Amino acid sequence: MTVSALLSFYARRSIRPYRLRTVSFEQCRRTLHLLDQSDAHGADSNPAYDFVRRHLGPNERQTKEMLNKLGLKTLDELIEKTVPSGIKYRGTMNIPEALSEHRALKEIEGIAMQNEVWRSYIGLGYNDCIIPPVIQRNLFENPGWYTQYTPYQAELSQGRLESLLNYQTAVSDITALPYANASLLDEGTAAGEAIAMCFRHTKRPRMFLSDQLHPHVIEVARTRAHGFRTEIEVLPVDKMDFSKKDVAGVIFQYPDTTGNISDPSNLIARAKEHGTVVICGSDLLALCLLKPPGEMNVDICYGNSQRLGVPLGFGGPHAAFFSCAEPFKRDLPGRLIGLTIDSHGAKAYRLALQTREQHIRQEKATSNICTAQALLANMVAMYCLYHGRQGLRNIAIKIHILTCDLAESVKAGGHSIKNEIFFDTLKVKPNMSVDEIKQRAKEKRINLRYYDNGSIGISLDETMNESDVTDLKWIFNVENTITSDTVIDPRDFGNLTRRSRFLNAEIFNKYRSETKLMRYMKHLENKDLSLVHSMIPLGSCTMKLNASAELIPCSWAHFNRIHPFSPSSQWKGYAKLINDLDQYLCEITGYDKISFQPNSGAQGEYAGLRVIRAYHEHRGEPQRQVVLIPISAHGTNFASATMAGLKIEKIQLDKTGAVDMKHLKQLAEKFKDTLACGIVTYPSTSGVFEETVRELCDIVHHYGGQIYLDGANMNAQVGLCRPGDYGSDVSHLNLHKTFCIPHGGGGPGMGPIGVKKHLVSFLPNHPLLDKDSEFNPKHSFGPVSSAPFGSASILPIPWMYIRMMGAAGLRRATETAILNANYIAKRLESSYKVLFRGTNGFAAHEFIIDVSRFKERANIEAVDIAKRLQDYGFHAPTVSWPVSGSLMIEPTESEDKDELDRFCDALIEIRKEISQIESGAYDKKNNPLKNAPHSQHVFLHEKWLLPYSLQKAVFPIDFVTPDNKFWPSCGRVNDVYGDKNLKCRVD
Amino acid sequence: MTVSALLSFYARRSIRPYRLRTVSFEQCRRTLHLLDQSDAHGADSNPAYDFVRRHLGPNERQTKEMLNKLGLKTLDELIEKTVPSGIKYRGTMNIPEALSEHRALKEIEGIAMQNEVWRSYIGLGYNDCIIPPVIQRNLFENPGWYTQYTPYQAELSQGRLESLLNYQTAVSDITALPYANASLLDEGTAAGEAIAMCFRHTKRPRMFLSDQLHPHVIEVARTRAHGFRTEIEVLPVDKMDFSKKDVAGVIFQYPDTTGNISDPSNLIARAKEHGTVVICGSDLLALCLLKPPGEMNVDICYGNSQRLGVPLGFGGPHAAFFSCAEPFKRDLPGRLIGLTIDSHGAKAYRLALQTREQHIRQEKATSNICTAQALLANMVAMYCLYHGRQGLRNIAIKIHILTCDLAESVKAGGHSIKNEIFFDTLKVKPNMSVDEIKQRAKEKRINLRYYDNGSIGISLDETMNESDVTDLKWIFNVENTITSDTVIDPRDFGNLTRRSRFLNAEIFNKYRSETKLMRYMKHLENKDLSLVHSMIPLGSCTMKLNASAELIPCSWAHFNRIHPFSPSSQWKGYAKLINDLDQYLCEITGYDKISFQPNSGAQGEYAGLRVIRAYHEHRGEPQRQVVLIPISAHGTNFASATMAGLKIEKIQLDKTGAVDMKHLKQLAEKFKDTLACGIVTYPSTSGVFEETVRELCDIVHHYGGQIYLDGANMNAQVGLCRPGDYGSDVSHLNLHKTFCIPHGGGGPGMGPIGVKKHLVSFLPNHPLLDKDSEFNPKHSFGPVSSAPFGSASILPIPWMYIRMMGAAGLRRATETAILNANYIAKRLESSYKVLFRGTNGFAAHEFIIDVSRFKERANIEAVDIAKRLQDYGFHAPTVSWPVSGSLMIEPTESEDKDELDRFCDALIEIRKEISQIESGAYDKKNNPLKNAPHSQHVFLHEKWLLPYSLQKAVFPIDFVTPDNKFWPSCGRVNDVYGDKNLKCRVD
Repeated sequence: MTVSALLSFYARRSIRPYRLRTVSFEQCRRTLHLLDQSDAHGADSNPAYDFVRRHLGPNERQTKEMLNKLGLKTLDELIEKTVPSGIKYRGTMNIPEALSEHRALKEIEGIAMQNEVWRSYIGLGYNDCIIPPVIQRNLFENPGWYTQYTPYQAELSQGRLESLLNYQTAVSDITALPYANASLLDEGTAAGEAIAMCFRHTKRPRMFLSDQLHPHVIEVARTRAHGFRTEIEVLPVDKMDFSKKDVAGVIFQYPDTTGNISDPSNLIARAKEHGTVVICGSDLLALCLLKPPGEMNVDICYGNSQRLGVPLGFGGPHAAFFSCAEPFKRDLPGRLIGLTIDSHGAKAYRLALQTREQHIRQEKATSNICTAQALLANMVAMYCLYHGRQGLRNIAIKIHILTCDLAESVKAGGHSIKNEIFFDTLKVKPNMSVDEIKQRAKEKRINLRYYDNGSIGISLDETMNESDVTDLKWIFNVENTITSDTVIDPRDFGNLTRRSRFLNAEIFNKYRSETKLMRYMKHLENKDLSLVHSMIPLGSCTMKLNASAELIPCSWAHFNRIHPFSPSSQWKGYAKLINDLDQYLCEITGYDKISFQPNSGAQGEYAGLRVIRAYHEHRGEPQRQVVLIPISAHGTNFASATMAGLKIEKIQLDKTGAVDMKHLKQLAEKFKDTLACGIVTYPSTSGVFEETVRELCDIVHHYGGQIYLDGANMNAQVGLCRPGDYGSDVSHLNLHKTFCIPHGGGGPGMGPIGVKKHLVSFLPNHPLLDKDSEFNPKHSFGPVSSAPFGSASILPIPWMYIRMMGAAGLRRATETAILNANYIAKRLESSYKVLFRGTNGFAAHEFIIDVSRFKERANIEAVDIAKRLQDYGFHAPTVSWPVSGSLMIEPTESEDKDELDRFCDALIEIRKEISQIESGAYDKKNNPLKNAPHSQHVFLHEKWLLPYSLQKAVFPIDFVTPDNKFWPSCGRVNDVYGDKNLKCRVD
Repeated sequence: MTVSALLSFYARRSIRPYRLRTVSFEQCRRTLHLLDQSDAHGADSNPAYDFVRRHLGPNERQTKEMLNKLGLKTLDELIEKTVPSGIKYRGTMNIPEALSEHRALKEIEGIAMQNEVWRSYIGLGYNDCIIPPVIQRNLFENPGWYTQYTPYQAELSQGRLESLLNYQTAVSDITALPYANASLLDEGTAAGEAIAMCFRHTKRPRMFLSDQLHPHVIEVARTRAHGFRTEIEVLPVDKMDFSKKDVAGVIFQYPDTTGNISDPSNLIARAKEHGTVVICGSDLLALCLLKPPGEMNVDICYGNSQRLGVPLGFGGPHAAFFSCAEPFKRDLPGRLIGLTIDSHGAKAYRLALQTREQHIRQEKATSNICTAQALLANMVAMYCLYHGRQGLRNIAIKIHILTCDLAESVKAGGHSIKNEIFFDTLKVKPNMSVDEIKQRAKEKRINLRYYDNGSIGISLDETMNESDVTDLKWIFNVENTITSDTVIDPRDFGNLTRRSRFLNAEIFNKYRSETKLMRYMKHLENKDLSLVHSMIPLGSCTMKLNASAELIPCSWAHFNRIHPFSPSSQWKGYAKLINDLDQYLCEITGYDKISFQPNSGAQGEYAGLRVIRAYHEHRGEPQRQVVLIPISAHGTNFASATMAGLKIEKIQLDKTGAVDMKHLKQLAEKFKDTLACGIVTYPSTSGVFEETVRELCDIVHHYGGQIYLDGANMNAQVGLCRPGDYGSDVSHLNLHKTFCIPHGGGGPGMGPIGVKKHLVSFLPNHPLLDKDSEFNPKHSFGPVSSAPFGSASILPIPWMYIRMMGAAGLRRATETAILNANYIAKRLESSYKVLFRGTNGFAAHEFIIDVSRFKERANIEAVDIAKRLQDYGFHAPTVSWPVSGSLMIEPTESEDKDELDRFCDALIEIRKEISQIESGAYDKKNNPLKNAPHSQHVFLHEKWLLPYSLQKAVFPIDFVTPDNKFWPSCGRVNDVYGDKNLKCRVD
């Protein structure tokens, strides 16, 4: 019973709590009441709601002041005028009562303890490893590293950009290929991306995959190929025939899934001879000892970098690596960090080749990927810095020696080993029953890989020492056979031995003491503006609080040392977490089932569209392939639709920025026989609750289509309206937007999809789950991720968030997000033109200001305002999307009025600066906006060179002071220079 | 078996590790060898030594370069020329082989699991509480908050100074007394300090203590009084007679140790009437509901602030609070933070009234206290910010209601409650046997307080909810008796109810959302230069790496949720840790036993001197009270000796800065009948291994004295020489210097003492340990700390350090520390005069440069150089101690050559700047040194005002760049102004 319950217990009996006459019951209750913001919104005065206050920025007083400014009395009034009544959710979400941080942590600890941490030697691309404590504490568990946004604003992001360049360099070095990107989602989708590159590159129709790839990789690749309406062909490499010159690409794995290392030269030669692109799935640690793909004429190399210092995490999040040869560089999927120069001519980092990306190229993009795994890639980068080449080789050698020892003993014990040459993985055909082995393994709490044919797979890892190997021997009932008399055949990797050096750059040989690495990490951290500094008001990205209590469980072994393919009896805690979240998210969205497999929003979109396709095909309407998308949609919508094999028809907007319903109807009617679905973002990408959304859904349904609702803007809906209620059939939910998973400086993300009942059986499945698992839908189109539940180890975050907020708290968060957005809009409207508001004049949780008119009058573009905001200590809003020449602002509920006011003051002051350009007081080319951001480089001259004062440059407003100045670490970066002189690694 | 063992196993059998022909065994071994710096120093090529590399700054190459610069070939040669051969330790310390970080963490996890985490409702000044996750993650577990030094250099310390001022304000507000210090070590020593204040203030001989104080507080106070050769008198408050005007002070506790709250007005009136100082021991949470001492004419209030957001930690570290009325402000012991102005006239924080402190006043100091509990005080400050007044009251009310509920039920069940009025603590006389209660408590894993007379004490805390209370009722075999018919007598605190508000300052009402508090903590963190930025070369303070792996266990519940007075069966893990450390530290020092009770170096000194006194008294020589101390000793030596009731005779130095042996001999002879001991610091405070140390010890022993060796400089000795071998009888060990406990921005520290066999039975005991506990020495002089093992929860740090370093690693660290110091001395000697080196021309681990001659020639003092170093990104060395007009530099082993070179470059460049003053190029009053440090305030003028360039001011050398500039956050602070206008709280 909580205090409030105790209090109300006393209240019911008219008994004053004793000893409290002076601290009377009434005073008590008032005290609690004052403390409890959620009280006014339906929750009882329960201190468990404490966290709601912690999550929300504005307190009661500020909330009132802001409502006042909007001419409103209550939040209810605001919501009434914002959310169309026709779609308003009037129920109460069936979500358990909110818990305090302390109780929620206790409860999730109980769930964690339902997972069993066994030693997992299953392999399949996932190996336990040692996370250096200095990296765990100062990077993984540090909001300075996990709360930044994607580094689009390069000047405020030099820290993680530098680190990601280190990551690219490490991958490039180890794979010996010149270009590597800054990570993909997982090994399976990396293979999928490689396949797409082959098709694009060769325009050929066929794709060969070795049958010795990891089974989940094959299945994810198969799903991807199906998306393109092609079939991959899975066969032994020696059966592959390239001679017809119709094979786009071939993928082999080295070492292969069973641990075998065989010389791929012949395969590569055959493929290349006939113009087939050659792709190698590999393992970075193995490549520290083995001849790297880049030295064998391979075009593309990919794999999972998890074992370089990232927790197993039940399958993710991990950074998949991806590197390629020179001819493929401009085709690389995902984020690529490049070097360039800044306005002072100094070296600077930034995202390269952004024009390839989906937010620009829409359906013509090379991929739908938005999210990378930046945080995890940074961990890998630091792991490489920490160990250096020698350290990595040392770890590899240790693992290899232990494997050799095991192999020899197992063989001496009469079992047969299927591997001629191996690195860390063995396939054993035992001379005893598999059941007995399983039983003995259970006694030791060890997981192995059990092949269908009775063979056993064993993959060794960095955490092991000899006693672990002794346990393994015991399982096979063999002795430590090496004695002083033992003669061991020396074998070797022969011409597959790595002879080239790697990680030669100074950076990899500089930070080996903990002191130096710690300082380097802090040095980089402090260059980056993150949520620990100030608001990041990014439209459509929902940069809200990532509370410590939400993050803490992600560090626990019971969540992060679980192998994704361990038996389900060992992950009951995860099953509970997933089922809880399934139920909560269904309550929130009105859907009937959630799949947690997609591990990014874009992948969720893709999966959702594939569900729709599967549904139509299952109903005998495979011709339904047309998808209607408003032209203002997220670029990803187009890219995902293309990847899902759908044909895009674009819907125009009306003059209010809303979907043109007439045009929609025309299109729906025109394609009535082939209509697959409509995609709609709600509230719209213009930041408006369109009144017509239910009608839109009805029209599409009427013509036989399904509705895919892009969940990016769920933060405006939670508790107020539910997509599943007003007509949508499927949505993805960006758990890293609405549900508090941090952005990690550009990933991880997590994009589960919710569907209505009729689509449940088409959700993603997974080949390594039990066939009859509750998580394996009957008519699935296949898996979209390497791991059954995507990036499962960050699911504690949304779970904690929902449990600590409760139904009332969640609704209050949404209301506050809408209030905050409207408050800023109100404050800015006399300085800027606010585009697109709802019928009552209110925006949703974000809104757009038009800055296009300054171009002509003052030579000022949106980007100049964005950069100038840095001088004021703020990260820019979304620039020129979805409307060019605009800024889209989303404050979220976590920012309080003081911060919103500072942000408004900054934009208003910038507007004045623009006026001074308009009036001629400032030069059109040499002014505070054009020269923004002003880094400390402006002090590097003996004389002050700018036509305005130093103070104007760097302390442009009263609240930017020496006490709190955040310094952009370089002048404006030159994107054109960087893309022309592409350089994506350290030398 | 480790890899190297495997490898050597193969080697012994001449078997090449299979599959490694190309990565051959030899190559393997070479790789490992190269990785392993400790190899050259006796350790085998074991990757477990990995941590040694992480801990040490210089790698092999740098070590060679530095030796080269010194004209030496090997480290052995350096040590041979530095450490006198007569005292050199030639054995091998019996310390287990080093473990890697991963293995050491596994092993200490095993030790932790031997502790049992029960619910402890024992009270006695220690209560479990909830640490807000945002504080745990961003402050407690953040090196940016725990690796700073004591804030002597105010301009680089404004962050934690501000936070500590918040702490002082909270204490001042809650106790309603105008001045509070920035924390003492624990409740018992706080009472001891209060007693000392009474004696100083009144010059009267007697001291009354209520018999209702916590028993450990009484015993620690008794020890302290004994030190002053007086007796405290413990009696019921109503038996106290002040009329003879001979009572210096009286201490009562409110609420008292049994939980009773009685009106102290009468006592206070009686005492004050006769000029007795009135001291109140209290509890900050209780004072949120109760009339505060300051409103009842109390002079001094003290207690433990632990329950405001600091873990139980088996007794510490915690911040004891201490506040006083106006007349006592300049007598306040410990650190006091005050407001002042900086050189720009802006508000700034700094340590106030430093002239009171022992490092200035030596034996006339108000106390020997050096260490505060800054880190813990900062946690309390943030907890107060997080909750605010309403939150704190809310917590207090919740606890009180639960207590009332429990009391009512227990009474209804037929037990008798001894408390008329109470807050959170009950004393129950049960109607069942204590054994039965113990048995039932055991079933619920609950600890209670068991009084000798069969009563039971129960103290409730913040973590509890109704189910915990139900368990307590079950233990007393009573039902939840409150039903709808229950009539409960309303009782109240009457005129003891708090009616005044507190925490009214804006700062306590501003940071309630997690976003805001997180930003505030990061904002403060980034103002402070800590080890995450650059070297802190503080002589005598050994600012070395505090490795993450060492710190991580301190966050575990199995270490930090153990009540210090829980039964020994529940802290077997701690016993193991303590016994391990006892053994390791004895190996390192040559002593026979370690007491872990003293929780600071100064307290260790005090305890050691009391051990010596007890020894003499036990032998029937109580007149032995004279202590010989070199004039160059740490000021603490004098202060501690005074407190220990010893009479000080100062030994002069010879012209080399060494102890004048002739003078020593004269004094020893002169006081041969009364000689208690000699105190010596080794290597000397001048940074020299004096050749005469053994002779010195012999002389003192010859005249019947003991030797107290100040352990501050152990970092120069570990593995090279052992005090216990060359003649010392007792030493304290600063675990926060040599053994890696971080300085926490000014505490915690930990100062265990080691003694030779003949002193073992005189070590501190503790009244709450079992009488026959192995930790309770037979002839003890009493306890010095509230908790039996002082700040036990940070002991994992030295344990981890020693286990990860091993004997060879520890020795190597010492050698490297000496190398680093000598390398800097060498590089600086052409620019500065290096004082005092050993006979072969080498310093120990630190050395002094004389800068006094610049005063006349250039008007430059040591402090100017110290401040100017800030502009170069460095924290100053020790200023003007032990020689005035000097800087004492100690780099430690954790800094690498690059950092040392930058530091040398900075000092050399500063020397050039001084030359420019000497030559007249710079003005004597307006130059870069006098104006240092240059904060961003220099940009706040429209025009540049200084007679040298901006670049010269803030980027004075090539390695200080916009990329890495650390900005002092204010101009030079004005100490005089602050002390004149004393202001020590926020309004």
